[in-house]
Amino acid sequence: MQTVGFIGLGKMGAPMALNLLKAGFAVQVFDRLSDLADPIVRAGATNHNNAHSASVNADIMISMLPASEHVESLYLGATGLLQHLTPGTLIIDCSTIAPASARRLHDAADGLGLAALDAPVSGGTTGAQAGTLTFIVGGLATNLQRARPVLNAMGKNIFHAGDAGAGQTAKIANNMMLGIMMVGTAEALSLGVANGLDPKVLSEIMTLSSGQNWALDHKNPWPGLNTNMPAANGYQGGFSVDHMLKDLGLAALTALQSGRATPMGELARNLFALHAQQGHGDLDLSSIIKLIDKKNSG
Amino acid sequence: MQTVGFIGLGKMGAPMALNLLKAGFAVQVFDRLSDLADPIVRAGATNHNNAHSASVNADIMISMLPASEHVESLYLGATGLLQHLTPGTLIIDCSTIAPASARRLHDAADGLGLAALDAPVSGGTTGAQAGTLTFIVGGLATNLQRARPVLNAMGKNIFHAGDAGAGQTAKIANNMMLGIMMVGTAEALSLGVANGLDPKVLSEIMTLSSGQNWALDHKNPWPGLNTNMPAANGYQGGFSVDHMLKDLGLAALTALQSGRATPMGELARNLFALHAQQGHGDLDLSSIIKLIDKKNSG
Amino acid sequence: MQTVGFIGLGKMGAPMALNLLKAGFAVQVFDRLSDLADPIVRAGATNHNNAHSASVNADIMISMLPASEHVESLYLGATGLLQHLTPGTLIIDCSTIAPASARRLHDAADGLGLAALDAPVSGGTTGAQAGTLTFIVGGLATNLQRARPVLNAMGKNIFHAGDAGAGQTAKIANNMMLGIMMVGTAEALSLGVANGLDPKVLSEIMTLSSGQNWALDHKNPWPGLNTNMPAANGYQGGFSVDHMLKDLGLAALTALQSGRATPMGELARNLFALHAQQGHGDLDLSSIIKLIDKKNSG
Amino acid sequence: MQTVGFIGLGKMGAPMALNLLKAGFAVQVFDRLSDLADPIVRAGATNHNNAHSASVNADIMISMLPASEHVESLYLGATGLLQHLTPGTLIIDCSTIAPASARRLHDAADGLGLAALDAPVSGGTTGAQAGTLTFIVGGLATNLQRARPVLNAMGKNIFHAGDAGAGQTAKIANNMMLGIMMVGTAEALSLGVANGLDPKVLSEIMTLSSGQNWALDHKNPWPGLNTNMPAANGYQGGFSVDHMLKDLGLAALTALQSGRATPMGELARNLFALHAQQGHGDLDLSSIIKLIDKKNSG
Repeated sequence: MQTVGFIGLGKMGAPMALNLLKAGFAVQVFDRLSDLADPIVRAGATNHNNAHSASVNADIMISMLPASEHVESLYLGATGLLQHLTPGTLIIDCSTIAPASARRLHDAADGLGLAALDAPVSGGTTGAQAGTLTFIVGGLATNLQRARPVLNAMGKNIFHAGDAGAGQTAKIANNMMLGIMMVGTAEALSLGVANGLDPKVLSEIMTLSSGQNWALDHKNPWPGLNTNMPAANGYQGGFSVDHMLKDLGLAALTALQSGRATPMGELARNLFALHAQQGHGDLDLSSIIKLIDKKNSG
Repeated sequence: MQTVGFIGLGKMGAPMALNLLKAGFAVQVFDRLSDLADPIVRAGATNHNNAHSASVNADIMISMLPASEHVESLYLGATGLLQHLTPGTLIIDCSTIAPASARRLHDAADGLGLAALDAPVSGGTTGAQAGTLTFIVGGLATNLQRARPVLNAMGKNIFHAGDAGAGQTAKIANNMMLGIMMVGTAEALSLGVANGLDPKVLSEIMTLSSGQNWALDHKNPWPGLNTNMPAANGYQGGFSVDHMLKDLGLAALTALQSGRATPMGELARNLFALHAQQGHGDLDLSSIIKLIDKKNSG
Repeated sequence: MQTVGFIGLGKMGAPMALNLLKAGFAVQVFDRLSDLADPIVRAGATNHNNAHSASVNADIMISMLPASEHVESLYLGATGLLQHLTPGTLIIDCSTIAPASARRLHDAADGLGLAALDAPVSGGTTGAQAGTLTFIVGGLATNLQRARPVLNAMGKNIFHAGDAGAGQTAKIANNMMLGIMMVGTAEALSLGVANGLDPKVLSEIMTLSSGQNWALDHKNPWPGLNTNMPAANGYQGGFSVDHMLKDLGLAALTALQSGRATPMGELARNLFALHAQQGHGDLDLSSIIKLIDKKNSG
Repeated sequence: MQTVGFIGLGKMGAPMALNLLKAGFAVQVFDRLSDLADPIVRAGATNHNNAHSASVNADIMISMLPASEHVESLYLGATGLLQHLTPGTLIIDCSTIAPASARRLHDAADGLGLAALDAPVSGGTTGAQAGTLTFIVGGLATNLQRARPVLNAMGKNIFHAGDAGAGQTAKIANNMMLGIMMVGTAEALSLGVANGLDPKVLSEIMTLSSGQNWALDHKNPWPGLNTNMPAANGYQGGFSVDHMLKDLGLAALTALQSGRATPMGELARNLFALHAQQGHGDLDLSSIIKLIDKKNSG
């Protein structure tokens, strides 16, 4: 049985660690907020006071942190975790961060004889709980092969996007597309309803036509249409506006750094930023309908 | 066997009329450009010198014309076709036009004891040829019931969007969504490739993740990825930039008239307008990648 | 002394009529809301029960109405005012309406031996009160020559934009530019302040640099900077968001009808539409800062 | 007479150094491309093989470099120029760089007892040659006081924007506004001309109305209107599309880092990026009309 060190026990990290326990891995956890470890410890994990302690004897280190700076702070520098790991340890960073940060981690790990993968996820808290996450992985195929047992314990689909950082790039491109589609879907429904259509009928038509998209099918923003979606529950839960905004920001940053034009992606970022400013950062991203059509969707 | 009058034999109308013949309907055709009738006549239709002649003894009249003004000019006014039709005749206008124009046709038909449906299509020339079009229908359910045999001869899916004009509104909302997704997909692929990803791998990841959408699956814009898509064939055929631009214009007009905000839809319209100005109006809409990423996709 | 019939006594029309009186013209007024006439009548105008009555013996008819449909309804059709005017009467429509509507009025007037000008204004209620409006005029130069005495009584600058409808087109293009600059100025100030700048200092720098523009100089959106601007007064008064939205809508409509790309103009329209949906339609257009930067400007 | 070390002799730096010589300063120059020094040496400067040599005995160091990385590389690090300067030396960096980079330079200079100002310029090559640049300065007022004689030799207006980095922030906010206005002006002229207006007449109207802005007045994009503007000269010279794109990129980066919404600024960046991709990066920014209205302006 392999031992996994797990750093970061937020809304995503906690259920992921629980699924590792269910699959039989020994799990050593750490989070700066020690309370977050309690339910995982009750399920069988050992709790640790710091990342270093959680990494002792670990075959694999997994991290699930909010942003680039947290990942760099955890692993890199003279006091970073990399300095303490046994050569051969496999690092799987599941955080969504800038591709450039991911490449810095890969390079530093390489230099110390460690193996690394960037493995951001898609699927949200629901997928994390159900163990049906999608992992989008960057790094060497041999390292991915080693990672498969733990990834399979937490998810359903595993994609090998390419070399170091490719997982982050693919995640960011995918989520930029999601943000664009979410706003677009809200606009299409708003336009239809304002002209007399039933939002349920319009949704059914679009999902079977060339307007079909994941946001419409899984996150229909019109309030009350589908009882199992956030829009039927005051937009609670799900993938938050603030997370969408973070990912659209990473996409814009990557576009700037690589000299690309992403006019729709950046407009989506700005619309989500306006929406967050209205105090809706914690709601599911489908709540963008409140910005687009305050009157009909309110 | 019912007799169908068919007006408008362009790239969409011609294969639709042929499918009616295959299904056993008697078809009486007219187009201002008389040459367009030749292949349909060879398949068994009768050709007529004007719309009035093509409508004599017709149980059902179908029209497939470029824009609102052509439909209004055909049917309405003191010399319009409505004046010549036998009460009870069913009019099925398959053109994509402004919802307001469609409602004018419905109202005028009503006043003369005629039945009308707006029934714009989705599926493009490929769908027209294969008889797999989607019809998005506005009007009374009883009229749609009468129309089903002819619609089934030309298409696969039939949606009843609602009352008079609802077919047009739903079509326009759907196609606005398609335009948004096409540009967004081009941006996502451009961003990924500029950062080292294989466009084929990124496409596969997105199609199985939350970036999944019809444009990516059926019209991947990256050149050469899928041999059966326009992008592998110099963007020939398919659904043209000029048609997309027309539909996005109808969406913007409808948004203006109903006081809606469609920021992404209108940006998509403007980007397709810039693309058309570069001389690409005849290409498939997936050619928008040429505007978004001239360097990598050219 | 010439007699002027004046139709439409709203926030713009009323002070314009008063300035005509001050300049010595006989003024015959009508508004559907009869109360609006009271202050003008006290200043010397005669009040009338309908437009026809207000036009009797008038050398010149002036109208200042909300939108295309009101202007068309006033003048055109079998019961329109044009049918009652003495040949040679000069019509000056100061409303801001669609260029196509303006051209319809010109054409109908021509056919009846009447003279017409489209003469929309710039300068807002402040300019209307001070008699410093700018008139942007479309129509024949000889007609404009006849109009100068009354226009000079109400304004300071008179521009001859071109033929029939050109006044409206120029007004719309100008106001689209204003809308773009207003949002842009709000964004620039928001960006500066979020990064530590004093909004007053940044405004002074921009006004003397290449960021200089009318919106910054006359409608600085930052709250409290200039005591004589709407932003120091809770955004009361001035040129309302709803009026800006109307003009940006006319610009978008004109762009659609003439096949133009106006990406910035249409984005500005959408942002003002989102802002109006938040309940701010009555505020001065500089209140758009509330949408762009809710936190810092609130 | 003070001695000034001057690093960076490109299209901006060269005429700035010449104006220092005219004003009587001793000037010690260095550029990696040694040929660029020739005309300045002929005018009386001394040429140096490296930045260190150019700084010996200098009271003031001025740098005018392309981007953040060049400035950081020049001054910072173990081998950077700061290590060689005599305490008390005043550094004036006139490059346009990220505010964060400027603050790093200020901090490092502070730590070594050096004085620093960020002083990016507005006015382009024409202003640099005429000695009429605008300096937008961040840093201590006492340091600015010391800098005034050299700044006055090169420019006309000096603004004190605030503390360290404030010059860069103000410059970036100002130039984002310029980019927005340039695209907006192109759209307004395109819309007017497509509807029958004379671009010269429309420009005159806007410049005296609420559409007035610096871009319209100094960089009218319509081809051939003003013989002294780039648009009359094939868009040669002036402020290039690539420079505009760089500044709009800095604005977007700053917006991302400070969590701001700049929808119009980011759309302008994307439109200039599309324009640059068409091969127009070297043209004056007013050439954006070629993207917006290829037909009428081509």
